[in-house]
Amino acid sequence: ELGSFEEDINKVKPEYVKSFEFERKLLPSTWIVVRIDGRHFHGFSEEHEFEKPNDGQALNLMNSCAVAVMEEFKDVVFSYGVSDEFSFVLKRDSQFHDRHASGIVSAIVSFFSSMYVMKWKGFFSQKGLKNPPPSFDGRAVCYPSKEILRDYLAWRQVDCHINNQYNTCFWMLVKSGKSKSEAQDYLKGTRAQEKSELLVQQFGIDYQTLPAMFRQGSSVFWGEEDPTESYSDGPDGKSWKKVVVEHCNIIEQSFWEAHPNILDEEH
Amino acid sequence: ELGSFEEDINKVKPEYVKSFEFERKLLPSTWIVVRIDGRHFHGFSEEHEFEKPNDGQALNLMNSCAVAVMEEFKDVVFSYGVSDEFSFVLKRDSQFHDRHASGIVSAIVSFFSSMYVMKWKGFFSQKGLKNPPPSFDGRAVCYPSKEILRDYLAWRQVDCHINNQYNTCFWMLVKSGKSKSEAQDYLKGTRAQEKSELLVQQFGIDYQTLPAMFRQGSSVFWGEEDPTESYSDGPDGKSWKKVVVEHCNIIEQSFWEAHPNILDEEH
Amino acid sequence: ELGSFEEDINKVKPEYVKSFEFERKLLPSTWIVVRIDGRHFHGFSEEHEFEKPNDGQALNLMNSCAVAVMEEFKDVVFSYGVSDEFSFVLKRDSQFHDRHASGIVSAIVSFFSSMYVMKWKGFFSQKGLKNPPPSFDGRAVCYPSKEILRDYLAWRQVDCHINNQYNTCFWMLVKSGKSKSEAQDYLKGTRAQEKSELLVQQFGIDYQTLPAMFRQGSSVFWGEEDPTESYSDGPDGKSWKKVVVEHCNIIEQSFWEAHPNILDEEH
Amino acid sequence: ELGSFEEDINKVKPEYVKSFEFERKLLPSTWIVVRIDGRHFHGFSEEHEFEKPNDGQALNLMNSCAVAVMEEFKDVVFSYGVSDEFSFVLKRDSQFHDRHASGIVSAIVSFFSSMYVMKWKGFFSQKGLKNPPPSFDGRAVCYPSKEILRDYLAWRQVDCHINNQYNTCFWMLVKSGKSKSEAQDYLKGTRAQEKSELLVQQFGIDYQTLPAMFRQGSSVFWGEEDPTESYSDGPDGKSWKKVVVEHCNIIEQSFWEAHPNILDEEH
Repeated sequence: ELGSFEEDINKVKPEYVKSFEFERKLLPSTWIVVRIDGRHFHGFSEEHEFEKPNDGQALNLMNSCAVAVMEEFKDVVFSYGVSDEFSFVLKRDSQFHDRHASGIVSAIVSFFSSMYVMKWKGFFSQKGLKNPPPSFDGRAVCYPSKEILRDYLAWRQVDCHINNQYNTCFWMLVKSGKSKSEAQDYLKGTRAQEKSELLVQQFGIDYQTLPAMFRQGSSVFWGEEDPTESYSDGPDGKSWKKVVVEHCNIIEQSFWEAHPNILDEEH
Repeated sequence: ELGSFEEDINKVKPEYVKSFEFERKLLPSTWIVVRIDGRHFHGFSEEHEFEKPNDGQALNLMNSCAVAVMEEFKDVVFSYGVSDEFSFVLKRDSQFHDRHASGIVSAIVSFFSSMYVMKWKGFFSQKGLKNPPPSFDGRAVCYPSKEILRDYLAWRQVDCHINNQYNTCFWMLVKSGKSKSEAQDYLKGTRAQEKSELLVQQFGIDYQTLPAMFRQGSSVFWGEEDPTESYSDGPDGKSWKKVVVEHCNIIEQSFWEAHPNILDEEH
Repeated sequence: ELGSFEEDINKVKPEYVKSFEFERKLLPSTWIVVRIDGRHFHGFSEEHEFEKPNDGQALNLMNSCAVAVMEEFKDVVFSYGVSDEFSFVLKRDSQFHDRHASGIVSAIVSFFSSMYVMKWKGFFSQKGLKNPPPSFDGRAVCYPSKEILRDYLAWRQVDCHINNQYNTCFWMLVKSGKSKSEAQDYLKGTRAQEKSELLVQQFGIDYQTLPAMFRQGSSVFWGEEDPTESYSDGPDGKSWKKVVVEHCNIIEQSFWEAHPNILDEEH
Repeated sequence: ELGSFEEDINKVKPEYVKSFEFERKLLPSTWIVVRIDGRHFHGFSEEHEFEKPNDGQALNLMNSCAVAVMEEFKDVVFSYGVSDEFSFVLKRDSQFHDRHASGIVSAIVSFFSSMYVMKWKGFFSQKGLKNPPPSFDGRAVCYPSKEILRDYLAWRQVDCHINNQYNTCFWMLVKSGKSKSEAQDYLKGTRAQEKSELLVQQFGIDYQTLPAMFRQGSSVFWGEEDPTESYSDGPDGKSWKKVVVEHCNIIEQSFWEAHPNILDEEH
């Protein structure tokens, strides 16, 4: 039998078979953003009875996995998360996986997914993780300048705001007795200002007092000082540096002025 | 404060930001292979004290995750695994993720990773899963014909054989008292025939009697009959169909003749 | 001055600059089609007073350039032209320009363009070539099987038929006194059968008797026999082989059965 | 017969056939450089008896074609040529051909090629253009910042200098009686300084006095003033603007400071 297998071996031409392997290589000297999104998270969040419109523990779990990603992949210099989505920004001159898109995306999405399952118990001690387990898909996008990168991040934060305002209204209406389709109809075509007034007048909610994590999403980065929310040792043996999670306006210039190191191209 | 945020919103141009998103689309009507590989599995297997040269339970865990992948992603028609690597073959006309490479690779690698962590306890009840959790990277390759697809699979199975024969010798030498570098030197330049004789003469091992899973790797596919190794319900309500795991020669024509449905382009 | 230039030289890092060069590589073992199209040929044909709806000499010039392409680029095994467009089929295993799309497309489109200007006088001895000179754009597409390649060619020939039938009606109406927009309105929504009847009843034209080159386009390939329309010496020193231009149905199986060598993968 | 063709028509599925067409799209907001190179120009220059090491008329013809390219393709903001090669820089936000690499490269290379044949007689009135006509291949490269774009141009100018210095020595040696291989051996391993001295001492040539076009290559751009070397009307009806050809150091900052409009992102 081995004899025939030995013959089989000689028929195989690895070089030919490997010549079909292409890699999409990402343009050098551009900021790479890997954005991952939960697959079927609508069903997953129902199955695991996440609170609506936002489940604080589920978001903290996402953030904790993002912190782990930053500790594992030192080329990730900033992460921004909202709902079941996270964007990871790699430094402009990253050589991770030789800048091959599939390698970069798959390594990050795989690590994040394993970590999510590993850490689940720490955030939902009372709830078992049911089958099928959570999974994510991902993509890589290149941005050629800091300005456009910041436009990208602004786009995600604006999306966070718009979705959260809508969802807050929607779930308040549902909790107050409307059916889901009635709530949907009710909100159809309303503008930001109207939704804001709806919350105040009908439910006595001042949108600005809702938790910043729900309104602004989560920004994750290596902090300079000793923050309260610290997780682990930083890179380069600088143990006083920790990955921090903040919920702040990242559209405004002030955030980036206060944290010049994040997109500093020399680090 | 909201006022200023509302102004920020208007500065965001989603269409512009999204214009940077490209997807590598895989050529239609070609067989897509997604191959995933364990990241840092050398360290991971030491950390978790896997048996050498092969850990049966670790391989069974990999196979079980591959079965779950096939049950979740119905476009995967065949999978082949060896060591910490698995290849998933999508049917020629798959429209999964619109044939976008990142979407396809990330969804499969993420699901496999979560599943690996979820199922760990079922295979290693005595060993906890340590940090960092296992992760994989992946890539997608297109093959334009069945013949070249089979050349690809043959290449992987030949690799399995070559690596396993080497590793079997290496670990027998190490277990018999040689250091790792002595074992390496001893084997340097030896041919298949010599390794085969080494095993028989020095260790009384007939390579052909070693477990088929170690020698041939694992082929995973939807079986026609009621197999012994069955895991779950098949697609299309045909409950008599199960995903099976076999350890057989997939280079030979006979395997594909015995299972004409696997690469049947009509299913 | 040289001194400062010598300093400049040392600042240049060719490896870095070249790292931005990517090439799109075309999947191995697929049929590559390079399709070129005249740029602004509507204006070009008016400027040079081409006959309408078809200018025989202009088409012969296109065909003559395609013959030259096949003689220059021996990997091109079949060409099909209609109007100001030509499709060049490269053999499945072509290694031309390492299968880099830009190299393949640019070499063919450049050669065709130069040739068009060179040969102009031979076809239009009475008309000078005016500025700007004719130019073409091009693209490369891969087809993974002969069947799909033939579907592609069928698509182009059907397009030729549909456009030619329409244009024949349109220009007969214009020549009979209608304005261009009247002719357009007249034909709007008419079906093939109606156009066919219009030509017979109003203009006494049996569409089937129009020149085959106008109705079927031009197929260019290395012929086996000594044809009447022969242009030059063939490859491999087989001087009895000539590139031929025919105007025939290439959708039907019969053409390909009569010329089995064209898509023969062994040549 | 038509009946059968009508049946053929219905078998054609344009959407399916077109689904195989991919375009490589170039990252938005990056500088696109299209570099074209003469194909087989070694033979072409011998066949047409170009002067060695530089043929002034051949270079002027190249430059004249580049001027025509800039007049035709208004997104090209700068061109740099040396020997049988030209680089065309498209403005950062060009939407030419929707930034599809094949379209951009093929349109420019085709136009350049036609123009070269058209203009030949104006530069070589005594020499006919022989078969096969000149052709070029091309590629597109993206540079994400002005700095890296200028690094690219510097690389090309340094290459021009190195090649020209070598070629000047080589042909002086050949003209003085050495065979080509003797000249090659003689120059092997010599450094810039040594070549410079060789020219002075052996041939009484001060390299710096050679024509700037040979030493510095040709920079082509829309000039602000009324230059002596002017060719045609500029864009936007600003008839006082002409495309100019200069032979100057483009590595130094001073050139770009003197011509701030060239890479001005607002124009």
